[in-house]
Amino acid sequence: MIKVIEMSNQLYLGIDMGGTNVKIAVVNAYGDIIEEVVMKTAVDAKPIAAVLAIVRKAKEFKNYSKTKTIGIGIAGDIDFIRGKVRFSPNLYMWKNVALKSMIERLTRKKTLVDNDANTAALGAFWLDAKAKYDSLVCITLGTGVGGGIILDKKIYRGASGSAGEIGHITIDPFGKKCNCGNTGCAETYIGANYVSEYACKYLETHMSPIIENLVKDNNSKITPELLFTAAKKGDKSAVEIWNYVGGKLGVLLSDVINFINPESIILCGGVSGAGKFIINPAKEEIAKRAFKSAAKTCKIAVSKYTQKLGVVGAAMLAKQ
Amino acid sequence: MIKVIEMSNQLYLGIDMGGTNVKIAVVNAYGDIIEEVVMKTAVDAKPIAAVLAIVRKAKEFKNYSKTKTIGIGIAGDIDFIRGKVRFSPNLYMWKNVALKSMIERLTRKKTLVDNDANTAALGAFWLDAKAKYDSLVCITLGTGVGGGIILDKKIYRGASGSAGEIGHITIDPFGKKCNCGNTGCAETYIGANYVSEYACKYLETHMSPIIENLVKDNNSKITPELLFTAAKKGDKSAVEIWNYVGGKLGVLLSDVINFINPESIILCGGVSGAGKFIINPAKEEIAKRAFKSAAKTCKIAVSKYTQKLGVVGAAMLAKQ
Repeated sequence: MIKVIEMSNQLYLGIDMGGTNVKIAVVNAYGDIIEEVVMKTAVDAKPIAAVLAIVRKAKEFKNYSKTKTIGIGIAGDIDFIRGKVRFSPNLYMWKNVALKSMIERLTRKKTLVDNDANTAALGAFWLDAKAKYDSLVCITLGTGVGGGIILDKKIYRGASGSAGEIGHITIDPFGKKCNCGNTGCAETYIGANYVSEYACKYLETHMSPIIENLVKDNNSKITPELLFTAAKKGDKSAVEIWNYVGGKLGVLLSDVINFINPESIILCGGVSGAGKFIINPAKEEIAKRAFKSAAKTCKIAVSKYTQKLGVVGAAMLAKQ
Repeated sequence: MIKVIEMSNQLYLGIDMGGTNVKIAVVNAYGDIIEEVVMKTAVDAKPIAAVLAIVRKAKEFKNYSKTKTIGIGIAGDIDFIRGKVRFSPNLYMWKNVALKSMIERLTRKKTLVDNDANTAALGAFWLDAKAKYDSLVCITLGTGVGGGIILDKKIYRGASGSAGEIGHITIDPFGKKCNCGNTGCAETYIGANYVSEYACKYLETHMSPIIENLVKDNNSKITPELLFTAAKKGDKSAVEIWNYVGGKLGVLLSDVINFINPESIILCGGVSGAGKFIINPAKEEIAKRAFKSAAKTCKIAVSKYTQKLGVVGAAMLAKQ
């Protein structure tokens, strides 16, 4: 009994460094946020200045002194062992930044730095899965398509730290050229920009009154969010576009299921906001493609905590 | 020092139950075979009769009494936890056979039963990788294409025991129908029968004197082995066929590399006998498709111990 109380008293500091916002939170051992704050990302600042501002903000938390360790999730090529940011796509000033030691010097608290796809997966493990599943794959459907893998309740990083590049599994070997150099990556079908691109093309011949009214001749408004809004209003073209995108997602998820037979797959990020419109066609594709028992075992859902995954996952990284 | 000697003295009994032969061996803690025997698989016998014959044979080993535990690899749907063979494609009499308890009753030795793709992976881990790598994916290129995954030096089985169904990752969503129900599975390009089928079709318009001479109008002779022989003799058509098959293998391996970033991939089984003729085009495809750092980290090779992987892996399962 004493042990349980003690555990619930332990607090961790999580930092989710995005390209737009930095989220900072004090989180307990169960993944509940105790205090949180959001600040703009100082994109043009030098890393040390940006870090100083973040640490200053964190020290304003009432429970700051009670936090034991710090976890940070950040996009890009991260050296987890050394806690270095080799490169971050949204932060052009950040090249080979020793983030871990920077923060440890400023806070005197042990700090862990990881890729944001991994911290999101850890967030999904604690929030969506309530830490119940042994294995979980978290797929972030944003501009890029990232993935994090939890095996035996821990982040699986692979031999050189790049495991989980799920967006770059080949869906169609004769498909479009992807930024990564490959052709026909999953990302070229289910990444946000590609969804918009496909929709624009589809709508050239299948424009519907609902979408026309929402877009008003400005094709740049054709985003996954707008397509979700239109689908909710019963727009047939929008539903058809989601059927196509969901079908492609289903091919990818079938590969994931046949390969590592996970207990759960959690989807997060903007495109996953389409909910049942993307999940249902994906499940139909899985029924056609994946092994029956493995598909039956795998619980697939859109995260209910998309906005919190990163910061809670970062804090839980600190817990590990 | 005493510990090392003690460890090397420990012996394990491995049984590799194939559709044609059963291999039985006494193996030491380092994966070296001390004694071995091969017997014909009693395909038409009742499971208990087949098991009795195997145990009788094993008891003839000089070191039988020194073996502590027994491991068995067998193709099919295996319940590892209960040690049950739910179904085995090559053994039609085997339906829901409690193999573990059968053998434990007959031998009084603790017994573990696993899928032969998993025991092959464990064999590759001990023999090819000398137990040095943390992660390894072993791909069996036979009639079927199977896979076993080693993570943290242990077999990774997945949430319902079906992890590693690598042959059923989709290589081309618009490809051929596979026996598993999916279309365009890797197996439909790199499985032995499909290699022969593709070769026959290719040779309709590209028959070469070397192959013509080997085949002598009997198309059923066009097997992966024959194509390897022809390629070694410098036959252009055979080389082209392997370039095609190797390219497809490369798409699959790129997916494996991008997804779980393994330290090593080991290929075994009949089709892998083509060696450099299949590996080189696969590597070219990986250079185009996989993440550079992950591809660089991953050591890809054909197993040097194809014939021993199953029985040594089974014994090492007993060690675990």
